[in-house]
Amino acid sequence: MTTIALDAMGGDHAPRAEVEGAILAARELGVRVTLVGIESVVRQELNRHRHRSLPIDIVNATDVITMRDSPSHAFRRKKDSSLHVAARLVRDGKADALVSAGNTGAVMTVARFVLGTLASVDRPALAAAFPNMKEKVTVILDVGANVDSKPAQIEQFAVMGEIYYRTIWGVKRPRVAVLSIGEEEMKGNELTREASARLKQSSLNFVGNVEGRDVFRGDVDVIVCDGFIGNVALKISEGLVEHIGGMLKKAIKSSLTSQLGYALSKRAFDDFRKRTDYSEYGGAPLLGVRGITIIGHGRSNPNAIKNASRVANELCRARVNEKIEQELSAAAVAARS
Amino acid sequence: MTTIALDAMGGDHAPRAEVEGAILAARELGVRVTLVGIESVVRQELNRHRHRSLPIDIVNATDVITMRDSPSHAFRRKKDSSLHVAARLVRDGKADALVSAGNTGAVMTVARFVLGTLASVDRPALAAAFPNMKEKVTVILDVGANVDSKPAQIEQFAVMGEIYYRTIWGVKRPRVAVLSIGEEEMKGNELTREASARLKQSSLNFVGNVEGRDVFRGDVDVIVCDGFIGNVALKISEGLVEHIGGMLKKAIKSSLTSQLGYALSKRAFDDFRKRTDYSEYGGAPLLGVRGITIIGHGRSNPNAIKNASRVANELCRARVNEKIEQELSAAAVAARS
Repeated sequence: MTTIALDAMGGDHAPRAEVEGAILAARELGVRVTLVGIESVVRQELNRHRHRSLPIDIVNATDVITMRDSPSHAFRRKKDSSLHVAARLVRDGKADALVSAGNTGAVMTVARFVLGTLASVDRPALAAAFPNMKEKVTVILDVGANVDSKPAQIEQFAVMGEIYYRTIWGVKRPRVAVLSIGEEEMKGNELTREASARLKQSSLNFVGNVEGRDVFRGDVDVIVCDGFIGNVALKISEGLVEHIGGMLKKAIKSSLTSQLGYALSKRAFDDFRKRTDYSEYGGAPLLGVRGITIIGHGRSNPNAIKNASRVANELCRARVNEKIEQELSAAAVAARS
Repeated sequence: MTTIALDAMGGDHAPRAEVEGAILAARELGVRVTLVGIESVVRQELNRHRHRSLPIDIVNATDVITMRDSPSHAFRRKKDSSLHVAARLVRDGKADALVSAGNTGAVMTVARFVLGTLASVDRPALAAAFPNMKEKVTVILDVGANVDSKPAQIEQFAVMGEIYYRTIWGVKRPRVAVLSIGEEEMKGNELTREASARLKQSSLNFVGNVEGRDVFRGDVDVIVCDGFIGNVALKISEGLVEHIGGMLKKAIKSSLTSQLGYALSKRAFDDFRKRTDYSEYGGAPLLGVRGITIIGHGRSNPNAIKNASRVANELCRARVNEKIEQELSAAAVAARS
């Protein structure tokens, strides 16, 4: 049974959303959840629910990292925080995976330095799933763990992302592409040209370069890029969904006079919202660290926490980190031979 | 009176949309339009409309650049194309501005090399307007004219973008920001750190770095970045708007059973569409070339062509290129002193 160390103090709605998510995960997914946080607060929240028959326990942590803490401050000065304690549970083999909806930069830094990086991995990468027009998802990585990446690192992202996609979405040979731009004069930049050249030589199902607008087309499964680009892509998408949601609400309110019309439209709108809800896709794994780490959105609700736990469980059961080490060292051997 | 050299063969709906757009522009904006294209085809289209009292003429061009032509092929091998002929009209002082909804890469290349670059400008930049939550626009540049830009070039983009914003949207001191990413550990990359340091020293109203999601918030007016980043931002946004539009249509169709509900929602949806219609904002100027150049979206309809002509006219009348040269050479002097 997978044991998940869940940072109970992480998200905007912590610890309530985390505790409810833990209950859903333990009940529906057959995982054990260790809630890590200020014990009295977490226990009080837990006692609001029926939980005695469920494999949930609490580990105390006396400090809390906030969304305003800088990653380096959180890492260096808050060693007793719920995040640090949860990461150490994974490091020490007392849990199999770390799940947190807290400060993304802090989670990345703590996971990277407390857990360490896998032997064949140069830099861990954060992978985010984008819903696409084919009603499937497209995974983009890195979305913010690194900047100024090297071509060989982009190739590693591709290997890790492909394994992640295969594991979670059951596609045998995911299509891999490099995020680039369309005009011939430049066909990308130095980084994308070199990364593409490497990927062409790899054993991956590399289909070439794609443009920003292809992210939502669903013609590729895994898109790799430097974390600066990926982060801009992710944040632009989140910002635009929020913006369009707001405009739409206004437009519907101002133009629909009948309650009937509003009610009918609301269903359509809610359906639309659900399909753009990134939390449905189970958070973003930080691939390449020694121990499965899933970072949820700060706004995670109980369902998002449950889904992040589901992804953590599936990655553990599929022994994703062993696969990453095997495939990367095989690729390194192939490159040398 | 501004004379616009309009590439009549450029867009997906050429020459019909271009000719209708020319008529709207000549009638409503008080500009002269020179339609450049295969004369017989353009004249036939023009003759479908009442145009004799309008300042519209035709200049023949025997070749056409397609969306599939590479920019270098279009530039080197299609010197008799409507785009080349239109650009030469501007170069030779027979027109004041070039407007084309054709192949973006080709327009950028032809404009850059036929017209040349302004004396103080290192590299021209393409500026795109994004509608924001404050019901205003945020301009991002560069969105694809350059990759692997240097910090000094980003600073030039800021100066040019600021002048453009001031001119078209009448804001006295537009707020300028660098597009970056949020986590402290890296606070952007090498390029953004150096560009920000330069902008802090400049006389611009520089407000710091923004993240992808701030693009739509409306708290800044001009956002500068390398063309690779800007192009990904633009294409991601276009792709997502298309995707959401499609999902929404499906959701509305499947959940609304009454014709009334559909009709009521359709109004809201159309209103929403209109507000995300980038063509309303008049195309993207290629700033920094010797002669105003506006690139419309390939899908430009007559209204988009008219709006592109409007922006071209306003930039000409405001003598934007003189301002760019003045301000950039002043900035260069300041940097040296």
